[in-house]
Amino acid sequence: MGLDTLYDLVDNNDVPGMKRWLDEHPPHVIADELGRSEAITAVLLFRLLDKDHALAVFEELDPVDQQKVLSGLRDRAFHDLVEAMDPDDRARLLGEAPAKFARRVLAGLSEEQRTMTARLLGYEDGTVGRFMSPQVLVVRSDVSAEQALRSVREKGEDAETIYTLPVVDHSRRIRGVVTLRELVLSPPGTSVSELANDDIPTARATDDAEAAARLMQDANLLALTVVDSEDRVIGVLTIDDAFEVIEAADTEDVARQSATTPWSGHYMAVSVVQLARSRLPWLLLLIVAAVLTVNVLQAFEQDLEAVVGLALFIPLLIGTGGNTGAQAATAAVRALAVGELRTGDVLRVAFRESRVGLLIGTALAVVGLVVGALLAGVKIALAVALSLVAICVWAAIIGGTMPLVAKRMGIDPAVVSAPLVTTLVDATGLIIYFLIARAIL
Amino acid sequence: MGLDTLYDLVDNNDVPGMKRWLDEHPPHVIADELGRSEAITAVLLFRLLDKDHALAVFEELDPVDQQKVLSGLRDRAFHDLVEAMDPDDRARLLGEAPAKFARRVLAGLSEEQRTMTARLLGYEDGTVGRFMSPQVLVVRSDVSAEQALRSVREKGEDAETIYTLPVVDHSRRIRGVVTLRELVLSPPGTSVSELANDDIPTARATDDAEAAARLMQDANLLALTVVDSEDRVIGVLTIDDAFEVIEAADTEDVARQSATTPWSGHYMAVSVVQLARSRLPWLLLLIVAAVLTVNVLQAFEQDLEAVVGLALFIPLLIGTGGNTGAQAATAAVRALAVGELRTGDVLRVAFRESRVGLLIGTALAVVGLVVGALLAGVKIALAVALSLVAICVWAAIIGGTMPLVAKRMGIDPAVVSAPLVTTLVDATGLIIYFLIARAIL
Repeated sequence: MGLDTLYDLVDNNDVPGMKRWLDEHPPHVIADELGRSEAITAVLLFRLLDKDHALAVFEELDPVDQQKVLSGLRDRAFHDLVEAMDPDDRARLLGEAPAKFARRVLAGLSEEQRTMTARLLGYEDGTVGRFMSPQVLVVRSDVSAEQALRSVREKGEDAETIYTLPVVDHSRRIRGVVTLRELVLSPPGTSVSELANDDIPTARATDDAEAAARLMQDANLLALTVVDSEDRVIGVLTIDDAFEVIEAADTEDVARQSATTPWSGHYMAVSVVQLARSRLPWLLLLIVAAVLTVNVLQAFEQDLEAVVGLALFIPLLIGTGGNTGAQAATAAVRALAVGELRTGDVLRVAFRESRVGLLIGTALAVVGLVVGALLAGVKIALAVALSLVAICVWAAIIGGTMPLVAKRMGIDPAVVSAPLVTTLVDATGLIIYFLIARAIL
Repeated sequence: MGLDTLYDLVDNNDVPGMKRWLDEHPPHVIADELGRSEAITAVLLFRLLDKDHALAVFEELDPVDQQKVLSGLRDRAFHDLVEAMDPDDRARLLGEAPAKFARRVLAGLSEEQRTMTARLLGYEDGTVGRFMSPQVLVVRSDVSAEQALRSVREKGEDAETIYTLPVVDHSRRIRGVVTLRELVLSPPGTSVSELANDDIPTARATDDAEAAARLMQDANLLALTVVDSEDRVIGVLTIDDAFEVIEAADTEDVARQSATTPWSGHYMAVSVVQLARSRLPWLLLLIVAAVLTVNVLQAFEQDLEAVVGLALFIPLLIGTGGNTGAQAATAAVRALAVGELRTGDVLRVAFRESRVGLLIGTALAVVGLVVGALLAGVKIALAVALSLVAICVWAAIIGGTMPLVAKRMGIDPAVVSAPLVTTLVDATGLIIYFLIARAIL
């Protein structure tokens, strides 16, 4: 109800009403609404927020939405917000922004913040360095729990987190990790080196951010220490950033699996042209691949002319093949993403999927036989049933193995997705069908 | 390399080698390997772990894998492990286990642990109650930060987390939330009621777990306080559990979107029959739906007999329609899952997608016109091109809106997935094609 109201308030230009609505909702809800809104509305609403509230809402926005809001602000408000951002959030904003916008951001920054941001921007897109916070609090291994706690109190204010504390030697090299929980619950005199756990994984700033985030999830970490090539602590990746990395990666996988180029930004806010642009290149590729099916059918045109009844089952057969292939491909892509499959598993997957395909194909063949016999006679029914078995086995193998092969070749497995598998299986499935039909009829 | 080695070691039954391998790897890596292994191997490896290591590995396993390992253990080891589990993990294990196994677990538990577990099991599957920990540490609102810290030290040992502390009144009713960070960084005399933030969301134990987990992610919370119907604190949902809930929900969505019933367990460990069973019912449904396409083609059989060339483009047209529909459906399902879309958006989505479909269809029509003219003459080419435009608009609208309609009807939107949309668009697309062809030829 509250949500319909906001649209109504905006439509009626009811400023006091909008202010009331903004006062009554927490930052993440307001951020969500701004993300859904068009730029003009988002800026209008954002300007109505009081200063503290504005920063909290701003921090909850996605980078594209931050840019959307910032672009509508005057210099003063613009720079106050940008200066108040965490360095990692700022780097992410700049990483996606056009050059002109980035210059405007950097121009207004204090020297210290500019240096920190520039350093993060030095890491490649998609690496841990782009998502880590350089504001990491470390403790020395040669102090006691009590001393460590005191230093947390003194220096913790600006730290990204104080719950996970890298333990370092005199040259800032990582020696382990201690949690605030351990510091608080241990007797004050316990030495930090005794508490430190050196079995906890760390990451390099140049590592792949998604892999690091999944590692955090696997090992149940609230924060991952980031080190340089000499094992010196340079930052920390926190769980909320890891969460975002994984969500973005999953959203990208989902998009790619439906042959869509991932776009950043809110589904309702992104323009129709952008949506079309993210989908069209793949459809063009797929339609060119689909010309193969036209060629195949042309090759069998005499058979079709002789028995038009064969054409009736084309959509059913290629549809089933496509669905079977898509099921296997989707399972493989997801198992790869969450780390259940490795590229070396390709033969085992092929063997497993061939058996799955055989089971499925046999069951479907029974349906095909009955439907075919009722609608088009026994001979065509037999051709349909046998084709279903062969196509299901073939589609399951292709669907299950193509993502693994793609990954081994350095291609994102999600790209070798359901639609691509489907289109390939379409053409080969037709060949199977007509060859079987020719043998029977 | 280390991984191939483990397989080799198992194949060669090299027990000292396996022990060495287990010693050298962290718990989450070992858990991953156990998850991939068949039951006999998993139990064999698990038994080789020393006791402390065994518990750490066990806690990293998924419930299905925990059951797999436990089933192979003797009573003593079985009960030690089960007793040592966190109540929420135990409830999750029992929630998925067969009755006989569950009885064996409960029989060996201490009174206290049994009561805690039974209480969690009283909540429905998929609710917050199933994932929360009842071991929540609260602080009273009328104490100082220093006193609160002291009570954390005294009672924190068994608490699920000490980083997020619900602030309660004398009858355990929630008054806000204070973080350990605030307690540590504030002057010792500050009162907790002053530090407490009452703007932080909470959840009911009967709430949907996925919604609660996504809320935590939106609001960047490390832990979510769980309250009963009278706002009394009864538990806490931590970020690692929330992460698991979201990952499981995403994996389920991905499976459903490819018309597969979600199965729990590791892709490589689940049996071929189980895989086939998770896919076959949907394929049966889809093939029955696909009989529609046979009927449609039969209705237009005279047109096909008159111009066999029309048949050549059937796979290309329905393939493109299916892909366009799948793109829109996938985008809509994902946007719903991450909260970017609401069911009330259906008309706006239909309007957006119709424009996207028009843009895409027009571009593809150009390709269709050229390919069609080269392979089958101008008239058929024209029919193909016009059909592409109409089918793309139609498929984008159906794909974009069906998930929203499903959600409004209380059906999981992921079920109204790419394959279902594709199959529906197949039949209607053929009607569009033949009606256009009839008008032109």
